[in-house]
Amino acid sequence: MQISINANRCQPSPMRKFHPLAVAAEARGLKIHKLNIGQPDIATPPEFYEAIRSHQEKTLAYAPSPGIPELIEAIQKYFGRINVSLEPNDILITTGGSEALLFTCLSILDPGTEVIVPEPFYPNYSTFIHAAGGVIRALPTSGKEGYNFANRERIEQLITSNTRAILFTNPGNPTGLVLNKEEMRMLADVAREHNIFIIADEVYREFCYTASTEILSMAQFDDIDDNLIIIDSVSKRFSACGARVGCVVTKNKDLQKALLKFCQSRLSVATLDQVGAAALYNTDPGFFAESKAEYLNRRDAVMRKLEKMPGVSFTAPMGAFYMMVSLPVDDTDKFQRWLLTEFEYEGETLMFAPGAPFYETPGKGTNEIRMAYVYYKEEMERAMDVLAVALERYNNR
Amino acid sequence: MQISINANRCQPSPMRKFHPLAVAAEARGLKIHKLNIGQPDIATPPEFYEAIRSHQEKTLAYAPSPGIPELIEAIQKYFGRINVSLEPNDILITTGGSEALLFTCLSILDPGTEVIVPEPFYPNYSTFIHAAGGVIRALPTSGKEGYNFANRERIEQLITSNTRAILFTNPGNPTGLVLNKEEMRMLADVAREHNIFIIADEVYREFCYTASTEILSMAQFDDIDDNLIIIDSVSKRFSACGARVGCVVTKNKDLQKALLKFCQSRLSVATLDQVGAAALYNTDPGFFAESKAEYLNRRDAVMRKLEKMPGVSFTAPMGAFYMMVSLPVDDTDKFQRWLLTEFEYEGETLMFAPGAPFYETPGKGTNEIRMAYVYYKEEMERAMDVLAVALERYNNR
Repeated sequence: MQISINANRCQPSPMRKFHPLAVAAEARGLKIHKLNIGQPDIATPPEFYEAIRSHQEKTLAYAPSPGIPELIEAIQKYFGRINVSLEPNDILITTGGSEALLFTCLSILDPGTEVIVPEPFYPNYSTFIHAAGGVIRALPTSGKEGYNFANRERIEQLITSNTRAILFTNPGNPTGLVLNKEEMRMLADVAREHNIFIIADEVYREFCYTASTEILSMAQFDDIDDNLIIIDSVSKRFSACGARVGCVVTKNKDLQKALLKFCQSRLSVATLDQVGAAALYNTDPGFFAESKAEYLNRRDAVMRKLEKMPGVSFTAPMGAFYMMVSLPVDDTDKFQRWLLTEFEYEGETLMFAPGAPFYETPGKGTNEIRMAYVYYKEEMERAMDVLAVALERYNNR
Repeated sequence: MQISINANRCQPSPMRKFHPLAVAAEARGLKIHKLNIGQPDIATPPEFYEAIRSHQEKTLAYAPSPGIPELIEAIQKYFGRINVSLEPNDILITTGGSEALLFTCLSILDPGTEVIVPEPFYPNYSTFIHAAGGVIRALPTSGKEGYNFANRERIEQLITSNTRAILFTNPGNPTGLVLNKEEMRMLADVAREHNIFIIADEVYREFCYTASTEILSMAQFDDIDDNLIIIDSVSKRFSACGARVGCVVTKNKDLQKALLKFCQSRLSVATLDQVGAAALYNTDPGFFAESKAEYLNRRDAVMRKLEKMPGVSFTAPMGAFYMMVSLPVDDTDKFQRWLLTEFEYEGETLMFAPGAPFYETPGKGTNEIRMAYVYYKEEMERAMDVLAVALERYNNR
């Protein structure tokens, strides 16, 4: 019995591959600061639980394949508030942004076709692209340039007749890069001129720490309707990762039809979670301001600590809640393994995501890590203190 | 911008493609008897809702990628009761049986490889196989032979060097065929001898109306650990379709690794639904006896009505809650469209799934339908009366 070529091309998730070692460390009584996964500690708005608790349905039935109308309508209104006008058919509810990405890749990629992805990138992109037989064409960036990838010349150099799409997270995971309006416009122009899809993963849309208070989306351009695919989710926006509710938004009719086939094949998205998600989209937008202020506070606390660590460097993230950090170690994968199997400081250790799997280019990222600043300030500061001790001990072991 | 070849090979779901026409018919005030989808009306055990309502979690967090330990343990115990011994790693929780099927296909199929599937089959199999670039090799059956496909010679004729698996539902959707132990043993032998996977979709395992009260599973054979993949789900077993909780069970270590990569890429299955599902697996097994008796009662009521309709023929289903029925019409797809757009009887009409998409072989199934007997007896009888009137009017229009 053989395993498929595409499955063999996929890698275990760098955010999750250390899970068994973490379970073992916890069994030994260690407290682990888990900065490896974008799992915020901000409370899910109570409206989510209330809507689910008050949902009366004797038989928990399949929802419609494209999603429940209340949720689609709530998302329409949400986009309306940021000046994006959508028809109900433009929105397909998915099991998290993850399913939106997988179905998108299955809908637009043939074996050997290419997706341009700025690196470092969210490593699960690689699994979704590989699942469809596609290939990543990495668009290299550097910390020195703030990981900015909005360079027309460099992008156009990568476009071939096999290019189907450019895929990016904005605000960026793992870099925290936030594109400005001109850069977004340039990307739209490139996609239109070269007849390729833009897959804009905007699940962190509200988490933006630049001076501008305007909420930007690629969907605000009205001349790329056939090119644009927006990936969205309630996970980060409403601190409801466990709900697994996202959506894919596109006005491309052929793509809508293709996506709908995959949506129909898996019947529906979990009913109760959709009911809860509809309530989330109708919560007071004040929630965003509060959580944004909270993340900014955490980010600053982390940066202040990192600045004092010898040999550590990073670019200040401008959005989302991740950052890439260069550490003075030989290999961050080895360092992570050591942290979970050999290290402890006052009964504590920490997890991050080693950097290499965020890159397609071999050899890059081996001394970098991605950290998620998803816990309250004091907890993040404590985690940074543990990191400082760990770095010292690791290099003197 | 191009749509992928694999997406173009997929068809809209025959169970769901008439959804827009149904919405329009309902908007005109029609009551529709929906026999198109296996959505039972049996109440979901209250333990599901109770577990979810009492789940306290300030932040609804991601679950572990393989599933929450309580649910995995509950499934281990459930399989233990039918004499199947599983390790926790043998079980991966998925978003419904659908995701289990998709991830399985992505894990074992390369473009152009083949899966032997007895026809008629559950049409979404085709989407999952096509998504991975695979090809269906149809194993033809006939109503006259009770749709039985357990014929070693016919199966072996289809096996080539490209064959990766044989995939079947048992008890059968859409036919209601139930395999006996000897037939299951033969399938196990064929898989072992030819070194191919068996994908046994056993989501209707308890719904079996044969004289035997023993609950059978391919997992009861202990000499096909490397070949066997069980697809399972809470949807039908516990009348909880909207929960979207299923699992894939395999002892093949390479496959476990491949599947886990896809599970990790989508992060997790919805947390609350897993909590509810764990409670379901711990409910009183008396629930199965009750729902089985109820379905049997419905099946018999439907058969009594169908037997009286001129030109209608069918094979008595022995399991699950579907049946294939031959109707005296030119084309059941046209007939369905007519039922939703032109017909009504005392303000009512009905939906079924047209038969052709249940076959890979062109031209087959055009005068068949699949019906789900998922409503209480009187409702099913009424639906059959509406069908009788519709058949008469359609053929005299």
